[in-house]
Amino acid sequence: MTDPRLTPLAASLPATVPFVGPETQERAAGRAFTARIGANENVFGPSPRAIHAMEAASAEVWKYADPENFDLRHAISHHHGVPPENIAIDAGIDTLLGLLVRLTVTAGDKVVTSAGAYPTFNFHVAGFGGELVTVPYADDHEDPAALITKAVEVGPKLIYIANPDNPMGTWHSAEVIQRMIDAVPAGSLLVLDEAYIEFAPEGTAPALDVHDTRVIRLRTFSKAYGMAGARVAYAIGARDLIAAFDRVRNHFGMNRTAQIGAVAAIQDQGWIDHVRSRVGVARDKIAEIAAANGLVCLPSATNFVAIDCGQDGAFARRVLDALVAAGIFVRMPSVAPLNRCIRVSAGTPSDLDAFELELPKALAKARAG
Amino acid sequence: MTDPRLTPLAASLPATVPFVGPETQERAAGRAFTARIGANENVFGPSPRAIHAMEAASAEVWKYADPENFDLRHAISHHHGVPPENIAIDAGIDTLLGLLVRLTVTAGDKVVTSAGAYPTFNFHVAGFGGELVTVPYADDHEDPAALITKAVEVGPKLIYIANPDNPMGTWHSAEVIQRMIDAVPAGSLLVLDEAYIEFAPEGTAPALDVHDTRVIRLRTFSKAYGMAGARVAYAIGARDLIAAFDRVRNHFGMNRTAQIGAVAAIQDQGWIDHVRSRVGVARDKIAEIAAANGLVCLPSATNFVAIDCGQDGAFARRVLDALVAAGIFVRMPSVAPLNRCIRVSAGTPSDLDAFELELPKALAKARAG
Repeated sequence: MTDPRLTPLAASLPATVPFVGPETQERAAGRAFTARIGANENVFGPSPRAIHAMEAASAEVWKYADPENFDLRHAISHHHGVPPENIAIDAGIDTLLGLLVRLTVTAGDKVVTSAGAYPTFNFHVAGFGGELVTVPYADDHEDPAALITKAVEVGPKLIYIANPDNPMGTWHSAEVIQRMIDAVPAGSLLVLDEAYIEFAPEGTAPALDVHDTRVIRLRTFSKAYGMAGARVAYAIGARDLIAAFDRVRNHFGMNRTAQIGAVAAIQDQGWIDHVRSRVGVARDKIAEIAAANGLVCLPSATNFVAIDCGQDGAFARRVLDALVAAGIFVRMPSVAPLNRCIRVSAGTPSDLDAFELELPKALAKARAG
Repeated sequence: MTDPRLTPLAASLPATVPFVGPETQERAAGRAFTARIGANENVFGPSPRAIHAMEAASAEVWKYADPENFDLRHAISHHHGVPPENIAIDAGIDTLLGLLVRLTVTAGDKVVTSAGAYPTFNFHVAGFGGELVTVPYADDHEDPAALITKAVEVGPKLIYIANPDNPMGTWHSAEVIQRMIDAVPAGSLLVLDEAYIEFAPEGTAPALDVHDTRVIRLRTFSKAYGMAGARVAYAIGARDLIAAFDRVRNHFGMNRTAQIGAVAAIQDQGWIDHVRSRVGVARDKIAEIAAANGLVCLPSATNFVAIDCGQDGAFARRVLDALVAAGIFVRMPSVAPLNRCIRVSAGTPSDLDAFELELPKALAKARAG
């Protein structure tokens, strides 16, 4: 029987969750993964300066974090040359997406995204009673023109796009994204998820324009900065929209140690260069492994690579299951035809050696059905 | 002009926030507080074992936290003798309250609490469109009988009580609270906030009964465990209610280092005994300081003490303002007649020396008008 104290919306929500964690799979298997290259975590870790700052701050965790995130907001402001009042900080892009959906979407409101794009965004849209309208990927890219056409048709509160894209790793140029921003219909907001932007080539991110009320940009310390477990991300947007987050966010919701680590991390851009270089090497190695197995990789502007397994989703699923059973944590897209691929994060040399060893076996198993 | 993309509810919310942080006051004053004894933080800090565990985990913060919080959930389960499926973990009681309100309260739903009780709960109720119905404190205690009477009258989704209470530090016996649980009307849920329970005398917490669907209990690592900045708290309740959190929570929302620290912290109950003892000494010292200034303290089962300044709220505000101007961070209740008090956290000897020095001057200033 449904608990009569739940709201009708809460009562209607499914028990499904966006992602199963690798630890759950490890507990089920009774052993740890050899290679943790499934969640696009940055295995090269945070800046040593950030690690040191977090270590040094551990004993002071009895203090609540500054609810204004002042130091971090100013460090981000300095890094991007954007005023602090155009920056909202919270515990990861997931939290920012949840707050943004809560601020804008109520029962019956529409939201446009791509079929197969970030599931946690969809989780939040459903969680606030919004109606998801999807368009397909085009040639393994999210399709800006189709998203805008659909938005003009259905009048959504939000239009979501990730650039570079997750789960495919593909990207559009700044010009294409800027044209998309310029075409956002009145009454809609473009949610531009740039979680992977630090890995992308120059010319992928449009210039930041904090006067543009049509777009909100999301950035994170979880990927290039190597701090996924710290839960720090930020939104850049027009002042009034950014101010609205204060009406609903948990003002004391940030981990204090993470705040301090993130300040140190953003001030060490040399480390980001180092990470970029190591990720580049890893991407090349993944492509080489794929080629040696007769497979093709999609081009990637992220810290992961989608490998086209060359058949359908059921086949890729068998490849993935065999890899997971062999101790290699990888994931795959959920929607056809994207799900002909598996998604492999840029691992350490030892991660990728393990992957190199297991991929041919997994392919053989999958081919054997 | 209001942003037409905001929901009507979001557009209607005020820009006010529950609490201003001490850092904001420090920035305004241009200097750090001498004594940080206003937010009921535990100045004695977390267990050295927890600090060590967090330091050791800092370099691994590139990994997302386990979304099932398995290790921590099992450590809490072991500590309380409660099955893991009756425990929901999230980033502080504030986050759990927000999720609980979201799950249960929609436009027009009523919620019963005490006038002057925890403002962040009220922030969430307003944030989801609920209607707050309050009853007064009775003799500086929350009034279980009045809360239940009001609940029977208005049929709220939630009834909130903190035991021990914040901001007054007073408490009820387990028998009184159990009678309250037994009297919760059908269709209502009692939110029993036990953030300070580890400081209370034996016999303050009713036995945990995970089959009782009428109550949800909230516990935190922010107070006795000294980890406010880590953002870890948990709810104990009936299985279906606990499971409902999974429908809306940020599954990857926890800080991984905090998770690891909390496991170490709950396994070091010797440290909690140590903290309790130091808090006891500090409460006695605060009472002694108050008495030396002709003031009376309320009895406290928490790590803070409400000092009755002996006049009205305007007077207590002047005392508080003078203390803050002198570098002593303290807070005060917001509602008459509670606001005749200032609220002082159990500080270190040096914190309380500073308070002892400044209180007589602050009283003199306040008396001079």
